[in-house]
Amino acid sequence: MRALIKHHAGPELQLVTDRPRPEPGPRDVLIRVTHAGICGTDRHIWEWDEWSAGRVPVGIVTGHEFVGVIEAIGSAVTKYEPGLRVSAEGHTTAGVDFNSRTGNAHIASDTKIIGIDRDGCFADYVCVPEDNVWPVHDEIPDKFAAILDPLGNAVHTVMAAGVSAKSVLISGVGIIGLMAVTVARAAGASRIFCTDINPPRLALAKKLGAIEAYDAREGAGWIKDVRAQCRGEGVDVLLEMSGADAAFSQGFKALRNGGTAALLGLPAKQVTFDFNENIIFKGCKVLGINGRKMFETWYQMEELLLSRRLDLDDIVTHEFPIEDYKTAFETMISGEGIKVLMRM
Amino acid sequence: MRALIKHHAGPELQLVTDRPRPEPGPRDVLIRVTHAGICGTDRHIWEWDEWSAGRVPVGIVTGHEFVGVIEAIGSAVTKYEPGLRVSAEGHTTAGVDFNSRTGNAHIASDTKIIGIDRDGCFADYVCVPEDNVWPVHDEIPDKFAAILDPLGNAVHTVMAAGVSAKSVLISGVGIIGLMAVTVARAAGASRIFCTDINPPRLALAKKLGAIEAYDAREGAGWIKDVRAQCRGEGVDVLLEMSGADAAFSQGFKALRNGGTAALLGLPAKQVTFDFNENIIFKGCKVLGINGRKMFETWYQMEELLLSRRLDLDDIVTHEFPIEDYKTAFETMISGEGIKVLMRM
Amino acid sequence: MRALIKHHAGPELQLVTDRPRPEPGPRDVLIRVTHAGICGTDRHIWEWDEWSAGRVPVGIVTGHEFVGVIEAIGSAVTKYEPGLRVSAEGHTTAGVDFNSRTGNAHIASDTKIIGIDRDGCFADYVCVPEDNVWPVHDEIPDKFAAILDPLGNAVHTVMAAGVSAKSVLISGVGIIGLMAVTVARAAGASRIFCTDINPPRLALAKKLGAIEAYDAREGAGWIKDVRAQCRGEGVDVLLEMSGADAAFSQGFKALRNGGTAALLGLPAKQVTFDFNENIIFKGCKVLGINGRKMFETWYQMEELLLSRRLDLDDIVTHEFPIEDYKTAFETMISGEGIKVLMRM
Amino acid sequence: MRALIKHHAGPELQLVTDRPRPEPGPRDVLIRVTHAGICGTDRHIWEWDEWSAGRVPVGIVTGHEFVGVIEAIGSAVTKYEPGLRVSAEGHTTAGVDFNSRTGNAHIASDTKIIGIDRDGCFADYVCVPEDNVWPVHDEIPDKFAAILDPLGNAVHTVMAAGVSAKSVLISGVGIIGLMAVTVARAAGASRIFCTDINPPRLALAKKLGAIEAYDAREGAGWIKDVRAQCRGEGVDVLLEMSGADAAFSQGFKALRNGGTAALLGLPAKQVTFDFNENIIFKGCKVLGINGRKMFETWYQMEELLLSRRLDLDDIVTHEFPIEDYKTAFETMISGEGIKVLMRM
Repeated sequence: MRALIKHHAGPELQLVTDRPRPEPGPRDVLIRVTHAGICGTDRHIWEWDEWSAGRVPVGIVTGHEFVGVIEAIGSAVTKYEPGLRVSAEGHTTAGVDFNSRTGNAHIASDTKIIGIDRDGCFADYVCVPEDNVWPVHDEIPDKFAAILDPLGNAVHTVMAAGVSAKSVLISGVGIIGLMAVTVARAAGASRIFCTDINPPRLALAKKLGAIEAYDAREGAGWIKDVRAQCRGEGVDVLLEMSGADAAFSQGFKALRNGGTAALLGLPAKQVTFDFNENIIFKGCKVLGINGRKMFETWYQMEELLLSRRLDLDDIVTHEFPIEDYKTAFETMISGEGIKVLMRM
Repeated sequence: MRALIKHHAGPELQLVTDRPRPEPGPRDVLIRVTHAGICGTDRHIWEWDEWSAGRVPVGIVTGHEFVGVIEAIGSAVTKYEPGLRVSAEGHTTAGVDFNSRTGNAHIASDTKIIGIDRDGCFADYVCVPEDNVWPVHDEIPDKFAAILDPLGNAVHTVMAAGVSAKSVLISGVGIIGLMAVTVARAAGASRIFCTDINPPRLALAKKLGAIEAYDAREGAGWIKDVRAQCRGEGVDVLLEMSGADAAFSQGFKALRNGGTAALLGLPAKQVTFDFNENIIFKGCKVLGINGRKMFETWYQMEELLLSRRLDLDDIVTHEFPIEDYKTAFETMISGEGIKVLMRM
Repeated sequence: MRALIKHHAGPELQLVTDRPRPEPGPRDVLIRVTHAGICGTDRHIWEWDEWSAGRVPVGIVTGHEFVGVIEAIGSAVTKYEPGLRVSAEGHTTAGVDFNSRTGNAHIASDTKIIGIDRDGCFADYVCVPEDNVWPVHDEIPDKFAAILDPLGNAVHTVMAAGVSAKSVLISGVGIIGLMAVTVARAAGASRIFCTDINPPRLALAKKLGAIEAYDAREGAGWIKDVRAQCRGEGVDVLLEMSGADAAFSQGFKALRNGGTAALLGLPAKQVTFDFNENIIFKGCKVLGINGRKMFETWYQMEELLLSRRLDLDDIVTHEFPIEDYKTAFETMISGEGIKVLMRM
Repeated sequence: MRALIKHHAGPELQLVTDRPRPEPGPRDVLIRVTHAGICGTDRHIWEWDEWSAGRVPVGIVTGHEFVGVIEAIGSAVTKYEPGLRVSAEGHTTAGVDFNSRTGNAHIASDTKIIGIDRDGCFADYVCVPEDNVWPVHDEIPDKFAAILDPLGNAVHTVMAAGVSAKSVLISGVGIIGLMAVTVARAAGASRIFCTDINPPRLALAKKLGAIEAYDAREGAGWIKDVRAQCRGEGVDVLLEMSGADAAFSQGFKALRNGGTAALLGLPAKQVTFDFNENIIFKGCKVLGINGRKMFETWYQMEELLLSRRLDLDDIVTHEFPIEDYKTAFETMISGEGIKVLMRM
């Protein structure tokens, strides 16, 4: 089969056509991939940065965002049948630790991720455990079904924080941050404020529903403006999606006492942080967000997509056949595209 | 001053023009009323039904939904100044019991209600304790500020249940039920289903955002339809706003296992109820809703109004000068009007 | 193998010695049972009441509370190995509905229960899906490991309601109610009040930590006493474990406004209930409780048992070899025993 | 009257005997103080450290933990009468911001604290707003009623985190940390682990209910031990009460994925912190804790004290007449005493 692999310890990926089709184990399903999305993580693997070089095994098939159709099932599979259109949760676990057994498998202690630790979905076929399969609702088109994984990061963050009838600050409107804008709006946020350093993305954030979009390079004056619009006290909710040091300290300044901060963006290194002013005196709640709740987040996504209130058309900007994978990656890396899909 | 009073133990109210202006106590504010809304409770008092005859003292000034301007303050008032445009929470308490001291004064053990237990707002002036005052945000017009009390019932119900990214069934779309439709939509409900026995109200519910509006007189076939649209399992949330016996048993049938039911509608008498099938086997959560949280609900209302996503123009249908109070009440009682205001 | 079966459609069970040992399916484990507990449900099956006759297939092996050792595993089992001492959750599901996939499999729409819908544990061997297996902590003795199922009902009820630093009323101190007393005490309930109509059980409830144990046959005067001890307002939490009509209405009278009621006891038929006074005006939260959360409840049980604060020695009163099953059932049915075990 | 004042900008306090008795404002009560506790904050003021010099006005009466009897009430006071035995919440606010009006006045934006920003309780009389008064239950002795303020810090932290049936690590067993041990135990913590660098305090922590008490000076090997005792995953809850840098990073290492950390201890300066490993990848919840919830924490304290499960006798170690205030402060500062009271 065709597959996009990390063929040596260096930059880029290579398209091979003779990769053997994987054989599903007794509890796996084999899925024929039809569409896959390129994630920021895939970009790291493409560029072979320090993290990738230390984590990703050479030879692996990359990719973890996709939709496809079940082609075959393992001998002990009972939940799904061939022919079903599905996506899948990419975090796999043995299923025996505390979090796996209490609805929080997304933070299991033994997580392996497809496309990073085991073969992924940039290929004609991918195998996943049946417990990871997500049947896609008929009303959800392939181009959105292909990106449930990153959309799930946004939904997880928004829903964990709780935005219904609340004012929200989103710091960082990259791909996930932009998704968070439309998700927060659909999930009932009353007013959404954004910051970033990329003017086109800020403009798009306003189109998606933000009432203010501040360029963080212009100083921290925006904090005063946000607070003024929120009774002089600050926003109810902070969704941190940039991983930028400044965003951490500024974001908490814009958050009201007793507010909630959900952190998804990963700082490059340790952050020097004023716990007293930012968290303890303020009486704030801070939530670390990772992956998607399995499978509460997926159900929430389905509801949000069925509500027809998510505006994803402006986020999924490009689609290429897998043969044009170089163009696809370049379009994503240059920032010309936001979410870029490949079609098998 | 002018005042609409229950002048004898019988139907209707009477407009008097020589009611003495009330004197604020040390911790009260005196408010010059500009607009007031007619509540279903006011209708009961107008009609002098059994409940009213047993509860409401003859001679009282009625009315509890209003907006106005602070005219004077008591000697020990510290929080607000004359000239401020305000509404007020109508539930007053001594402030010493458990619920009053923990953010739940709406269910205090000693609640008195203005316009029911003490003089109300269908008058040129009304006195309320300063702790009950709600400063109205500049962006909120008088005609909506006058109905924060009933809107607050809807907001309290919707927010207590939690509707963000959830499917919701609203049983009963009278005034509060209709408000609940637009509130639930703004607060992030993914899909709203309604039932009632009044076709024009059902039509309005759809206009306000319900995807389905079922006439409950046509049997319980709608339950099957709702469940089919919700994975065959049922809605996530039931908001019971009718007080009808049938709505109780049917609503729970349409609710999924583990769902949440918030009950606001008051049944006329005891309900014969299957706790096993409706609550225990289902693992449901049931919430009794009363009044408005003081003052969490009021802040949520402000946010929802500032979000500009509430559609109240179709709900506040009429406004009359207080001299036309008979027409105002008739318009409300006939069902021609939904929310009817009086202007002082 | 030996097995206690429902050999015909009528009262009692029969011990057979030639039942074929079950063969585990690909994802099942075969467990050699060492100890099993007799549940109230087993009593219903023994007595062959209306419910049993309508639900339980003749020929089935009964029993669902047990501890044992894994003897063999199916071909696709990955989680556990032979030799492990285990108990198991008796509720099985296909694992594809909303609740199964969100940590709430205990209220799945397709639940089957071992010993009721499929062969159970009153036998030398029982098969259960590997997902249902619960490895037993070394510090937990067999006689407690055998009753994790009913103990889990008590723990689920107590933990769902939340009793930490709260006053609690437990209505009904049968087996599960007695367990709830010691569980609530260990889980941090400040003060526990009980009602029942069985004086020895009431006495035991006091021994286990209740500060008051009222005989409900002596009228409802106890409600006044409970309220007086709770600021004149009522208890924070009601745990309803009797299923008695009177307990429903009386219990809610003893509950403070804004309190939480968790309902586990099953009324024999529909209850005529005053929703206005008991739930809506009070602003109460009511929780239906069923089974055990899979597997949050099991982890909570483990912690409670490791805390060494549960007093179960007074609850597990008898143990008989399975050959003496008639004596075992009679001891349980007569009320002489509380929790009665059988040893294989 | 007698009063312990900060008579000049420098170390120590001075006892004066001619301080005028304060006059209650219209909404204040005048309380005759009988017992007062010395807080760590009072020690800072005594030592006149940088924080004190920048915050505390010279001339002020210090002290904020006390019990006494209402002597007189202001003209507009309605809630309490002279003669009532009371303590009081020391955080005062104007009562008009979001948090003040939603049950979270402890994090109001305009908090003033008695004994720091306005005259305190180390005197024969103190004035507080009637809204701050806490009537003391008859069963609670004066020596415990005098320390409800710091006990409330411990109760707030423990209850916000939620410890019922959970394993808990308390980092730092100073006065509040020791209180947290007995509070956590009473509130249902299953197993309590502690760290500190003070062996006598560690020994006392074990006496109060900790199952392990580690000397943090002996390296971080204890983390491995804690994790091993908690399924290899870590504790459910971290209560950070030391403010020590090392405690922050070590504590999170000992916390399981998805666990909850409540932070009360104040670091002396900014902390260099790994958000990725400690919070984001772990999916943790972090709560900033400040003061006491007004008045939910106070009700919880009352319940815990009525439960008779708090062991405070080992914590309230000394009591002196106010004339011996120097000895009292020295006893506290030397560490010989834990909680030291003064008697008026």
